[in-house]
Amino acid sequence: MSYEIRVEKTNMPKPKPDMTKLGFGNYFTDHMFIMDYTEGRGWHDPRIVPYQNLCLDPATMVFHYGQAIFEGLKAYKAVDGRILLFRPEQNMRRINISNERMCIPPIDEEFAVKAVKELVMVDKDWIPEEEGTSLYIRPFIIATDPYLGVRPSHTYKFIIILSPVGAYYPEGINPVKIYVESNYVRAVRGGTGYAKTPGNYAASLKAQVEAHEKGYTQVLWLDGIERKYIEEVGTMNVFFKIGGRVITPALQGSILPGITRDSTIQLLRSWGIEVEERSISIEEVYEAHQKGTLEEAFGTGTAAVISPVGELNWNGNIITINEGKTGPLSARIYETITGIQYGKIEDKFGWIQEVK
Amino acid sequence: MSYEIRVEKTNMPKPKPDMTKLGFGNYFTDHMFIMDYTEGRGWHDPRIVPYQNLCLDPATMVFHYGQAIFEGLKAYKAVDGRILLFRPEQNMRRINISNERMCIPPIDEEFAVKAVKELVMVDKDWIPEEEGTSLYIRPFIIATDPYLGVRPSHTYKFIIILSPVGAYYPEGINPVKIYVESNYVRAVRGGTGYAKTPGNYAASLKAQVEAHEKGYTQVLWLDGIERKYIEEVGTMNVFFKIGGRVITPALQGSILPGITRDSTIQLLRSWGIEVEERSISIEEVYEAHQKGTLEEAFGTGTAAVISPVGELNWNGNIITINEGKTGPLSARIYETITGIQYGKIEDKFGWIQEVK
Repeated sequence: MSYEIRVEKTNMPKPKPDMTKLGFGNYFTDHMFIMDYTEGRGWHDPRIVPYQNLCLDPATMVFHYGQAIFEGLKAYKAVDGRILLFRPEQNMRRINISNERMCIPPIDEEFAVKAVKELVMVDKDWIPEEEGTSLYIRPFIIATDPYLGVRPSHTYKFIIILSPVGAYYPEGINPVKIYVESNYVRAVRGGTGYAKTPGNYAASLKAQVEAHEKGYTQVLWLDGIERKYIEEVGTMNVFFKIGGRVITPALQGSILPGITRDSTIQLLRSWGIEVEERSISIEEVYEAHQKGTLEEAFGTGTAAVISPVGELNWNGNIITINEGKTGPLSARIYETITGIQYGKIEDKFGWIQEVK
Repeated sequence: MSYEIRVEKTNMPKPKPDMTKLGFGNYFTDHMFIMDYTEGRGWHDPRIVPYQNLCLDPATMVFHYGQAIFEGLKAYKAVDGRILLFRPEQNMRRINISNERMCIPPIDEEFAVKAVKELVMVDKDWIPEEEGTSLYIRPFIIATDPYLGVRPSHTYKFIIILSPVGAYYPEGINPVKIYVESNYVRAVRGGTGYAKTPGNYAASLKAQVEAHEKGYTQVLWLDGIERKYIEEVGTMNVFFKIGGRVITPALQGSILPGITRDSTIQLLRSWGIEVEERSISIEEVYEAHQKGTLEEAFGTGTAAVISPVGELNWNGNIITINEGKTGPLSARIYETITGIQYGKIEDKFGWIQEVK
């Protein structure tokens, strides 16, 4: 796409929030990117405009039939002052995978990366510089026909918004307690589990709320068919280190093909550590725990990078992992990926793109 | 809820569309109902206002995590001029079932029926009077926190919009051709299949599009576990008449508890026809077809009331039902339910509520 991005800058910049108390997803920058899709005309009119409300007919299809997708990535202020993105082309590739499943027309991936970079440059003063902070980038697409029949929309909006976010671990990386979910199912093969679409997240809320009430941070999802094989942890991919080898559920259509998941696998293999992508049952994890070969467990995702699991509750069986402490491998992956993201460690994989 | 509904009438009424060419879900009336929810305060500020855009922060949770539910019902202009609703209390009960699954705070069901009636009265000139037309009523709730973390929203909007709709069968009730879906899954037990939530509809689009491309109107969904048991047809519940008895899939969490489904079961039983709510496999339907005992098949839903199935394509096996014509039982149910809805037939079941 050879389009120029029209830029209309705000003349009323917002006051910046206290960059030491950001939290996640609470504050938004001065500008946003929008591009429209009309059937027959394609994607058109890409523009960066002042951050503003979307004014939509109440019949707009996204409200009723949830035809939408999103992504999440971050811009990091490197130690040398550069602004870095981590594998943004992978997010845009995944947008098109999600789009295909949700019957949304494809975007030009390269152009979308360019749009992210231009928007980040316009709002570069919003990138926080405190340790562990970043500028969260949320591209999303919504169906915009004002129409109540069930069919794919003929019009869409592709939008990118930016949110300065605090360190995920302000007090250092810390293991979480996870409840193994036996009642609710997140997704099933043949469904939308591999797409980053709102409905998957809506479906996950109830289990999350009930896990919180029981004193757990998140749930471990089991497969929807046999309720036996491990899928994801909360909204993250999940890894287990058992007897020196690392195991993570294979991508079979019901789990998200995480970019941090892929980066973790590449890193581990580059370190000579064996990684198995295959089905892994909760029984296998429990038996490894009983035998004393369960060494570490952790989630991977853009927000936390690595989230060590300190305890699993499986129908009342408590599986304590590495004495509830962050394992050395979890820590090493975390330090390496975040090190690459903040430009502290050499990027041997070509994962980093600079925003200029 | 003892709230009064504040009414602000438009001073710019829209021109009415050609009531003989309405289609479905294309036109919207002059007013809408809105009520807000704020944590700690509950539902508040119910109001009928001129139909207007919703202006929402692009970070509004419904765009990203799909936390939302909706309903669909109709107001009918009876032959004697009365305005009738069909079992509206059932829609409002189902809103709360959907709300519970999606972590949305419950509404006052009785008040919601009252809100529907008041809104319909305000826009009563929009109820079309042609044969088979009606005023479609779309209540829906969306999560409105401008926040990007995955958790239930703390604020919501409950909205009702109205759309005059044409006859579903302008040329008389007509059977459709249905493709039995083997690749895609709509929902699985433990998921959100029984809730009327946008994600279920988003998940169904791809199969619908592919069925259209093959020359079929809709898909017949099979269960997500064994890919064997029948669930729904398109966005409707489904019934089969085999050897004089009527069979419909039992409500086990993955299918929508349809109000037309329930009305159909009550009607059939009142006529002395046996109805079995149980698992029914596609093999059973195919075998009945082979034996010559498959008499009729039809979908039930608010939009069409009854949608006869004339043909099923199951992996290339063509199952022609009642020679591709509308069966006598399908026709009788259709005539009876629509007869009650339009006040032509006595309502022995207490299904009708008049709007005054």
